[in-house]
Order: sequence, then structure tokens, then C-alpha cells
Amino acid sequence: MRTSKYLLSTLKETPNDAEITSHQLMLRAGMIRKLASGLYTWLPTGLRVLRKVENIVREEMSNAGSVETLMPVVQPSELWQETGRWEKFGPELLRIADRHDRSFVLGPTHEEVITDMVRNEIRSYKQLPMNLFQIQTKFRDEVRPRFGVMRSREFIMKDAYSFHLDKDSLQETYAEMHTAYCNVFNRMGLDFRPVLADTGSIGGSGSHEFHVLAQSGEDLIASSTDSDYAANIEKAEALAPQAQADAPTQEMTQVATPNAKTIADLVSQHGIAIEKTVKTLFFKASDEVEAPIVALMVRGDHELNEVKAEHLPEIATPLEMAEEADIRAIVGAGPGSLGPVGLTVPLIVDRSVAVMSDFGAGANIDGQHYFGINWGRDVELGQVADIRNVVEGDPSPCGQGTLQLTRGIEVGHIFQLGNNYSEKMKATVLGPDGKSQVMEMGCYGIGITRVVAAAIEQNHDKFGITWPDAIAPFQVAIVPMNMHKSERVKDAAEKLYAELTAAGIEVLFDDRKERPGVMFSDMELIGVPHTVIIGDRSMDEGNFEYKNRRTGEKAPVTMENMVEHLQSLIA
Amino acid sequence: MRTSKYLLSTLKETPNDAEITSHQLMLRAGMIRKLASGLYTWLPTGLRVLRKVENIVREEMSNAGSVETLMPVVQPSELWQETGRWEKFGPELLRIADRHDRSFVLGPTHEEVITDMVRNEIRSYKQLPMNLFQIQTKFRDEVRPRFGVMRSREFIMKDAYSFHLDKDSLQETYAEMHTAYCNVFNRMGLDFRPVLADTGSIGGSGSHEFHVLAQSGEDLIASSTDSDYAANIEKAEALAPQAQADAPTQEMTQVATPNAKTIADLVSQHGIAIEKTVKTLFFKASDEVEAPIVALMVRGDHELNEVKAEHLPEIATPLEMAEEADIRAIVGAGPGSLGPVGLTVPLIVDRSVAVMSDFGAGANIDGQHYFGINWGRDVELGQVADIRNVVEGDPSPCGQGTLQLTRGIEVGHIFQLGNNYSEKMKATVLGPDGKSQVMEMGCYGIGITRVVAAAIEQNHDKFGITWPDAIAPFQVAIVPMNMHKSERVKDAAEKLYAELTAAGIEVLFDDRKERPGVMFSDMELIGVPHTVIIGDRSMDEGNFEYKNRRTGEKAPVTMENMVEHLQSLIA
Repeated sequence: MRTSKYLLSTLKETPNDAEITSHQLMLRAGMIRKLASGLYTWLPTGLRVLRKVENIVREEMSNAGSVETLMPVVQPSELWQETGRWEKFGPELLRIADRHDRSFVLGPTHEEVITDMVRNEIRSYKQLPMNLFQIQTKFRDEVRPRFGVMRSREFIMKDAYSFHLDKDSLQETYAEMHTAYCNVFNRMGLDFRPVLADTGSIGGSGSHEFHVLAQSGEDLIASSTDSDYAANIEKAEALAPQAQADAPTQEMTQVATPNAKTIADLVSQHGIAIEKTVKTLFFKASDEVEAPIVALMVRGDHELNEVKAEHLPEIATPLEMAEEADIRAIVGAGPGSLGPVGLTVPLIVDRSVAVMSDFGAGANIDGQHYFGINWGRDVELGQVADIRNVVEGDPSPCGQGTLQLTRGIEVGHIFQLGNNYSEKMKATVLGPDGKSQVMEMGCYGIGITRVVAAAIEQNHDKFGITWPDAIAPFQVAIVPMNMHKSERVKDAAEKLYAELTAAGIEVLFDDRKERPGVMFSDMELIGVPHTVIIGDRSMDEGNFEYKNRRTGEKAPVTMENMVEHLQSLIA
Repeated sequence: MRTSKYLLSTLKETPNDAEITSHQLMLRAGMIRKLASGLYTWLPTGLRVLRKVENIVREEMSNAGSVETLMPVVQPSELWQETGRWEKFGPELLRIADRHDRSFVLGPTHEEVITDMVRNEIRSYKQLPMNLFQIQTKFRDEVRPRFGVMRSREFIMKDAYSFHLDKDSLQETYAEMHTAYCNVFNRMGLDFRPVLADTGSIGGSGSHEFHVLAQSGEDLIASSTDSDYAANIEKAEALAPQAQADAPTQEMTQVATPNAKTIADLVSQHGIAIEKTVKTLFFKASDEVEAPIVALMVRGDHELNEVKAEHLPEIATPLEMAEEADIRAIVGAGPGSLGPVGLTVPLIVDRSVAVMSDFGAGANIDGQHYFGINWGRDVELGQVADIRNVVEGDPSPCGQGTLQLTRGIEVGHIFQLGNNYSEKMKATVLGPDGKSQVMEMGCYGIGITRVVAAAIEQNHDKFGITWPDAIAPFQVAIVPMNMHKSERVKDAAEKLYAELTAAGIEVLFDDRKERPGVMFSDMELIGVPHTVIIGDRSMDEGNFEYKNRRTGEKAPVTMENMVEHLQSLIA
């Protein structure tokens, strides 16, 4: 490709409305342009990367035995009504009406459509397992689209769905998909981590997320210092710091704490160690509980894990804080003075809280705390559960090492759905016994457009993007110095361009009438991994200059060896 | 690919709701499934063909210097308001509202979006010409979607747009696109024809359609017996059959024709030759004319060409027949008795009518005709124009040979748009003189999904589809006879499958436990061009059997030569 025939569209200035690095660099490198909130046009440089990501995913999915299909973007509402998601899904599901006023959605996902197709096409267990994927445009009407294509409204997903006679077969395919995903991200040259994940609203029994590791990642990942264990912080199990509580050493005393509204106040004003404090939080109760609200307790220096809390059968879904008026009516005090002693509603304490002794908590009297509380003696220990976020240094739940926290960007997610959808949609096959049987399902997603942004968050420097070779928009840049004045430089550049192109290498030949500085900074910004600089001075010595984008290293390479040199680097 | 791991989904019966061959065969061959009216899922076999079509188009567009980009499916209404198409476009334009109640459309085409992008990115004539294409999902809310993917609501288009400083540059790119389109359809192995086309509602000055020739085609194409001239019947110029009218030989006489309501009645009841009759049709007039209606006359055996009629400045757009009440009020008679004599509204006659003599026409008195009418003597010749459809045997407007009519399916369309969009959207560049200048534009479409259906209309027989090699879902089928009983057959089939796959050939290996007849008819139905039959009997003689899908010819090929034999056929 010659830059003169190409839409390079690089920008010198960083656009004001781009908050994160990948968004800034994608705009500056001429990869994307905003059409409207959450809607982006992919300019040629961006699309070249996108297609590479897409092709790697397509090849690895095919290698793993998944068969490609393509389902419509527009889906009839009837299928969403069958699974109940027409009602359950929030306004992210964009509902539309056609000219005949029939209801449709712009598909944010395709469980309903694929399950409908498979229940029509697959009749016998002999056709199972079946694993189908597509790479298709999706739409999710985010309330606040942001970070460019990291959280856009229109985006491209690879979504795969597998169908099985039983759970063993599902687990086998799930493991194959886990391997395929590792192959995908390894081939792209990304530093990633598969982590245990919560199954969330899609439901099902097992799930892993695939995260590209990057300091700017929205997600926290907890991983063991000594093993392969890694989990999303939502999912990472928090063990108790010790096996059981120490024996009491203090009497329980009531202390006036009129100015202590927070844990920090309590610590600073009353000299109590933060590890000896607790937070008591009230949530709306589920139907399983007689009381309208339920109390949860975590240590003062810990954070409640809302996902774990929501999974408690005693708690209403979705998780909702209790109203202060309701708390006051039942407990007799308000936030800042709440605690376990004398509580009449169900109490669920975190594992770390269950092994505390001589601790302080609100007295359920405004402006009063108890210090020196001990379980059993002063108050019955409620139900114990894991309801907090892990912190650095916690023992790893795998039993080896301690947990460390890193940040990641979720780019893939695999689920064992079980029969969540297939049962509602009556997706059955005839089993070996001739009886109709509901299929087990798995689903497997990769955010194709998001991978591009995540790769940039992980691979950039102050000059621009530092693409891994496999997903770079071009493999080689040719930067000729003063080509429009020097015939010799022009001829050499044209010859090298022709040779590299003939060798199947993707070359961006900068044939613009621009100053060398402009060309260098453009090639660095868009992140071409290998650059050949052609100039009269080095040609006098029979050389071109090679420059590596990632390391910045420069070295002369003889003119006749340059093609071979590049081929060996790219292979 | 092994059929056992694949979603073959062939059907024995032809579905009732499929009217045309390609739709029937795409359903039977397991290529598509209907999700809702005008919405289709592409099953694996269909998608394989679709991707081949897509890749050929992508490669040839890139070879011709067009650069790939990707614009959103969902487009903001503001851009459509800028060009006035928000109002002009009918209900085919699906308008939607997002969660914030902002208006969007599901894009049926992308002129607005690309022009917006280019006006932002391209500032100088030095960056021109620029040719950009995308392959993207489109939506057109057809009132009556039909014929499967031939006229669906959601479909995939390749659309390209070029931008120029002047018309010469536009014409150069237009010619390159014409060549690229010929390359595309030649590579696909399709019998096609580029034809002159009307520019229709998109406007602009020059246009060609590309038609796949097929008896079932919706469009009529007129082409010269002796030259390259070909045009859509909407556009094909109709010359007069002779240079001027013969001299009168009859007096004009009034004839009572109370039972002649049609031209056919007139011919059968009154013995007048059909070539001596005319049809006088009234349409609503444009503002250019004082009268509310205008009369058009074509010969009794000819058909009015509505597209040509609509282009007359005297006629209102869109073309609309005059109300009978209005005709009666002005002319004094109704349909069946209308004619030129004594007419007080503007009269436009077809070229063929202008050279008639001694002809019959309605007398503008109910139940009465005049016979023996001659121009000049009996009535002034009105304005003369080409307003009829050509017929077989008409002289070709190119001056060589006569016209013949064939049927085609439109799969591509190229336009010289001029500055239709760029002017409304103020898409300008700085010209060489430093002054701002509106760009000239071209646009170039190929219906990717439609090509698949059109290829089937052209390539099928009673057994199923007869794909050209370049777009067949698989190149080779391996059909082993009784593989599940014969170890030798199984081993040979597995070996051949491995060898062909290693040679980069796309093979469908039918490893199902099915009767040979089922396998043969499935492979014929989906149209794999080359089949290898492996059986004990031919292996006794050291052979496999080769079968050609298109010719039906079978021939033994030695086992060791089969890979080479297939490679030579495919190359």
C-alpha cells in the first residue's frame, strides 16, 4: 500500500474527548472515527487490524471444530419472549418496530436465535455435539458509551454456542474452547490470563473470562503467587485469615461515638485498630426470609463483594440497599451506629468477621458503639459466608501461595450454560433410548472490536502503538528520504516495495512528499513493527537502515539482504 | 470437513413457501433458514459460498485501488436530514429511536456516512482521487420481502464510494470500477453482462448495471446482435422503425366502436392492423405545464416505458396516471376512446408513433374511433420523444445489428453521482488554486448475498446446484462406499482426505453411516464440483472413481494419481 493512495488520517493532537490511551491512539493513528455516541467508523488502518483479529479467531475456532454460521442482526421479539429476556433485559436491548409494527430487537447476543435454529435442524443425539460460531455485528444500547470501541454501542463479537446430550460432553467442548481461546490470544501476541468468573445473569454452572493484562484495565484479577489459580475479583474466594477466633480478653463496653460517622473516624477518634472494626450493611431481603431486610457484616478494612452478596438466597435480586427509614423502623438507629448486638433481622457475617474477637461495632443506638464484642458471649454468631472482596496477601483459595491483584480487560468469556435456554425453548433431541431430551449448552464469546483496543492498552509507548506482529496493520514500513529529489532512493524504494509485496509481506510505502520527521512519527504512531529507511547516505555504503518499532533499535542491513532479513524477523 | 461434525441440514422436500429455484435450492441444500420475514440465517454451507463471494470482491476491489473501511449499520438521522433523504426515502428506510429517544436509521446505503467521513478527513486535492469500500450488513424494510436472499430485508452489500476533484478523474475511476466488476464476475465463473442503466432516484450522470444472465431474472436486457451494446430495458433507446411517415392513402373516418374496450378488441372487431393502432395514456403534469394532465402516445403493439416517461420534464414525479374524472372533464371521453384529434392538453408521441400513417385512435367521444388519421393533415404532430420499451428486432441504437432481449438478475450497479451528495453536505477540498471546491463522487455496489442466489439461478439442474469452482462451498467431496464395513475403504478415504486437505483443497468427507444414494444426492444437491467415490470394487482395479458434478461424467482414476488429477482440475 502506498500512503499516497491510502487514507492515513493521522492526527497530531490528542482529541479532547478521549479519556483512555487506546481511544486516544486509535483516533490519532487514524484507526477509528466517531459517527455518533457509541458508533464508530473503522478507517482503513483500524480495519486492517480488526480483520487480522477476526481471521485469527476464525481459524482457531475452525481448528477447534466449531463451524461458522451467520445469524441476522435484527431478531424477532417472539424468541426473546420465549426465554423471558424480552421483559428481563433492560434498555440496553434496543427494541424496534418495522413498517408493519412488528417488534424486533437489534441483537446484543444470539442465544435465542441459535437455539431456535438448532432445535429445528438437529433431531438426534447422533448429530451431537455441535459447535457453531459466528462473527457478527451486535448492538447494546449502553446508557453511557465510552472509551471508544472499548465500550461502544455497535460492536463485533465472535459468539459460539455448543449443544450436547449431556454435561460430560459440554465439559469436553468447554475445555476445547478454553484451549482454543489460549491459542487465539497467544497467536495475537497478547499477555493474557484466563480467570474464573462469575456466571452472572446469563446463568449456568461454570465460566472463565479471558483478560488482556493492562494497568488501565477495568477489572481486578486475583491470582496466586504460587499456582495457576486466577479469578475475577467478583469470583475470587476469600478465606478466613485464621482458623478460629481468639479467646476474649476484653469486656464489652458501650462507648459514646457522636462524631464517628465512618470507620476512619472511629479509628482516628477512638484508637481502635481497623482490623477490630466491622461494617454492618442492610439489604432488601428475598422471599426466603421473613424479615424485610437482612444485615451483612464485613471487616472495617474489607469491601463487600456485591456479586457474592447477590448470590445469597436471603438477599433480593438485583441487590438493593435497604432504605434508611426501614432500617430505623426495625433496628432503632441509622447508618454509622449499626451493629450485630441485639439485632432482630437475619445476620450474615463474612468469614473474616466470624474469627474476630474483642471487636467494635455500632450499638444500634444513634451515636453509640460497643467495643470489646466477642461472638457467643455477647452476641450469637449469625450465618457465615464469603461475602467480601479478596485483598493482596490473602491466602490463595487453591491452597498454594497468596493472592496478588492485577488489572485486566475482559476480551473473552466462556460459559457452561447448561439447559437454561434449551429448556425454556424446548430444544430437544431424541436420545439413544429414543426419548426426547433437553440439550445442554455452552456459549463462548470474544469481543473482536474490543480486542483491538485492549491490545493497544497493553502495547504502546510515548510515540504510539507497538503492535505485536500478528495483528499489526502492516508488517513493514518503507520510509524513503527525499525520494522526490533522489532518483536512486526512489528506484531502491520502489524495488524493495515490489520485492516485499511479491514475498507476501504487507508493506506501507510512504511515498508522500513529506519531511522524514513526519513520516517517522506517522509510522511510529500507527505502530508498524519493522521500518526500512532508505537514504542516499546509507546507500553509499551499500545499506538500508532497519528500525525495530518496539525496541527502537536501528541497524544497517545490506541492500541485497533486506528482504531476507525482514522475512526472518516476520517468520 | 467431515459431514459428521458439520451441519449439513439438507432437505428432501421442497419447502412450500419458496417460489423461485434459488430460494428452493438454498433451503434444500441447507444454505439458509428463515428467521422472520426477510431475515435469514446463513447455515455453514451457505456461509462458505458467501465468504468466497466476499473474498473475491474484496481482492478485486483492493487490486483496483479501493481501500477497505467499515461504517456502522446504525446511522444518525441528522446526516439523512442534511441530504433530504430523511423525508424523501419511503418506509423502506427503517427509522429507530435509541434509549434517549434520538433518531437513527438502519442503513440501507452509506452515501451520507461516507461523505461525512470524507469531508472531515480529506482537505486537499492532493489526497484525491480517493476510493473507499466496505462490505457491510444493510437493512431495507421491503414491504413484501420475497425470493429468499434475492430480496431480503437484511442483506450484505459491498459498497464503494470514490471522491474526485473533477469529472475526468471520476470517469477514470468509473472505468476502473467497470473493469474490476468484470474481473469479479469473471472470477466467480458467472455468465454476466454489464448494461447501460437508468440512474434512477440516486441521480447522477452515468450508470451501468451488472446482470447475471438467467431465464428467471426479473430484469429485461436489450443487447445488440452485432456489437457490445447492452442496456436495461428501462434505459435502452428505441429508435423509430423508419425515417419518416408514409404519405396518407386514406381519408380520416369516424367509426362506431361501442364494444372495443382494448386494442385487441379493435383489431379483432374492426380488422385494423395492430401496427396501425395507438394507445393514448394520460398522466399528471409537472409544474412546467399549464394543463393538469399530459397525453402520451405509443403504438398499439408497444409498451410505455415508465422510466422514460417519468424523465419527461412535462410529467410529474413520481409518475402517476391521471384520474379518469380529470380526463373526462378535460377531454370529454374516457379510457378506450381517447386519441390525439382535438386534444387540448400537451401531447407527447413516441418516435414510432410519429412515423405512422393512416392509423386509428380514439375519437375522444365515448364508443367512437377515427380510422385513417394522418399527422399534419388531421392533427398536429405533438412533441416526439422516446417513451416506449424496445422490442426484439428493433434496430440497435448503437447503429449495428438489431436488439435481442434476455433476462438478467442485477447483482452490481455503478454510478457517476457527480456532486449530488457532496454539494448538499458541503464536502469540499482545497483545489490547486487554493479555493474550496465541491468533490465529484462515484458509487459502486455489489449485492454480496444476492450474488449467491443469482449464481444458483444460473447454475443448477434437476439434481441441485452446479456451482462454478470458484464459489463452490467445497471443491471436492469424498464419498466412501460402506466405509463402516470395509477397513480398506475407510483407510483409503481417510488417507485421501488427509492428502487433499494438506494440499489446500477444501474437502467435504462424507463419513456418515448413510446409504450411498443418500450421500450422492446430498453432494449433488449442495453442488460440490468434484466427487471421488471410493469403493472396494474399483479399488480391486487400483482405482477410485471421479465424478464431475456439472457434466455428470464418471471416470476411473488410479488411486495414486487422484490428488494430482483433482489439483489439475481445480487449478
